[in-house]
Amino acid sequence: MPSKPVNGEQRGWIIPIGGAEDKDTNPRILARFVELSGGGDADIVVIPTASRLKDSGLNYQALFRGMGVERVDVMDFDTRRDCQEPGRIQRLSEASGIFLTGGNQLRLSTILGGTDVARTLRLCNARGVTVAGTSAGAGFLSEHMIAFGKEGSSPRASSVRLAPGLGLTNRFVIDQHFRQRDRLGRLTAALAYNPFAIGIGLDEDTAAFISPDDTLEVEGSGAVTVVDAHDLQFSSMAHADEDDPVCMLGLGVHILIAGATFNLHTRRASAGRLATRKT
Amino acid sequence: MPSKPVNGEQRGWIIPIGGAEDKDTNPRILARFVELSGGGDADIVVIPTASRLKDSGLNYQALFRGMGVERVDVMDFDTRRDCQEPGRIQRLSEASGIFLTGGNQLRLSTILGGTDVARTLRLCNARGVTVAGTSAGAGFLSEHMIAFGKEGSSPRASSVRLAPGLGLTNRFVIDQHFRQRDRLGRLTAALAYNPFAIGIGLDEDTAAFISPDDTLEVEGSGAVTVVDAHDLQFSSMAHADEDDPVCMLGLGVHILIAGATFNLHTRRASAGRLATRKT
Repeated sequence: MPSKPVNGEQRGWIIPIGGAEDKDTNPRILARFVELSGGGDADIVVIPTASRLKDSGLNYQALFRGMGVERVDVMDFDTRRDCQEPGRIQRLSEASGIFLTGGNQLRLSTILGGTDVARTLRLCNARGVTVAGTSAGAGFLSEHMIAFGKEGSSPRASSVRLAPGLGLTNRFVIDQHFRQRDRLGRLTAALAYNPFAIGIGLDEDTAAFISPDDTLEVEGSGAVTVVDAHDLQFSSMAHADEDDPVCMLGLGVHILIAGATFNLHTRRASAGRLATRKT
Repeated sequence: MPSKPVNGEQRGWIIPIGGAEDKDTNPRILARFVELSGGGDADIVVIPTASRLKDSGLNYQALFRGMGVERVDVMDFDTRRDCQEPGRIQRLSEASGIFLTGGNQLRLSTILGGTDVARTLRLCNARGVTVAGTSAGAGFLSEHMIAFGKEGSSPRASSVRLAPGLGLTNRFVIDQHFRQRDRLGRLTAALAYNPFAIGIGLDEDTAAFISPDDTLEVEGSGAVTVVDAHDLQFSSMAHADEDDPVCMLGLGVHILIAGATFNLHTRRASAGRLATRKT
């Protein structure tokens, strides 16, 4: 469960990114992450644990430095033992912005899960630190994480396997590379198990900026698909065999683009600044 | 527009099928089409115009004969001239069930559109004749047909191109091979143009049996995804450039499996016999 905010302090932003965010021409997602972390005065820690590529962390370090951030460190927690070292935990807890790279979300959950790093990430976010993750890093942020899944847009019981994630919030389940990998079925199947959570499907180069008061605003070139099963009338999930399609009646779906918002408490979507755009 | 039913007669069933329907082990969709066309007493006409394969029509002829139907004819309207021959129109108008094969829906609209065949199909359906189509044949049945589209689940203005179809009804827009080809985005984009219609996405080996009173019931091994834009709060379609994602807030989505129903008038989904299934 998320850590409670410390007396009166606001929780920090939570920023799941759908992967393949623009790093050259128009890096608006990364720039806004930097801005929310303190701009030039930010102290950013990049955690490349999800990735097996040696330079994932260093690439982001160079990018954030190029945006004028002086203090950027890469902390590659590669084993569970790494995650218990007091010196590292101390460094991590000084960050004003934390960025989890892409890779394999099971590396994140198996290496960080239950360690001081995971606890520190939750504590940091609870006292106002911005936490972003891209691709696997995005999927890991919530309490319920999609570990594996099949592609194709009709949900089946076998479409998805959930695992516990980092737990900055339990309000939503994230899926990434959404449009690019045809993942509506697996996200919907995840909600069919227990409709309390909100499904958030992130296209590539698209992010959900979730404010301290739980309003989601979209940034980037694609769409964020919000699936709300709150008014679900009927689901056949409890009776479905592994490969049966699942019947789900009464789903609400919103397709949001940059500027549109969704309030995770009231479950209301808004066109935001899109509604006032000149024709 | 659909032909008006002749004094007091009920319109016939309309049966769009998502393609690749089971023809061997469990041909429940084709069997139900035969049953609704009169069973052993049916008089079935197969129209293989969508297909360029010589034996598409003959295969269905053999299948329907194997199900005990004595009178089954294949009528391959291959040119617009074919579609104006009085002898052929006479034969077509005797059918109790008409089946359009898969292939290319633009062959159907370009060859049959505006001819006596199209008019006869509408008249037959209006006086009670069952009309089914699979794949391209399914897409063609409605007034608004998806002619081309791109795959991927977030809608873009360029996701879809519509063309006029046969026009048995204008209540819905059909998309087929739905789960298999990731077509939610293009179906949703079609609704974004004008939200009055209901989107019906048919998985393979899955059909929507639409009764004379416009209740849709699902048959087959997959799902039918109903997208209802009736309560759409906001759409950015009017402002979107070709490749922009489209913002659509307030879509209703129902994923129906065999036995579930959707009323095209009231727009209410029901679990039908699934709701009473023993656990």
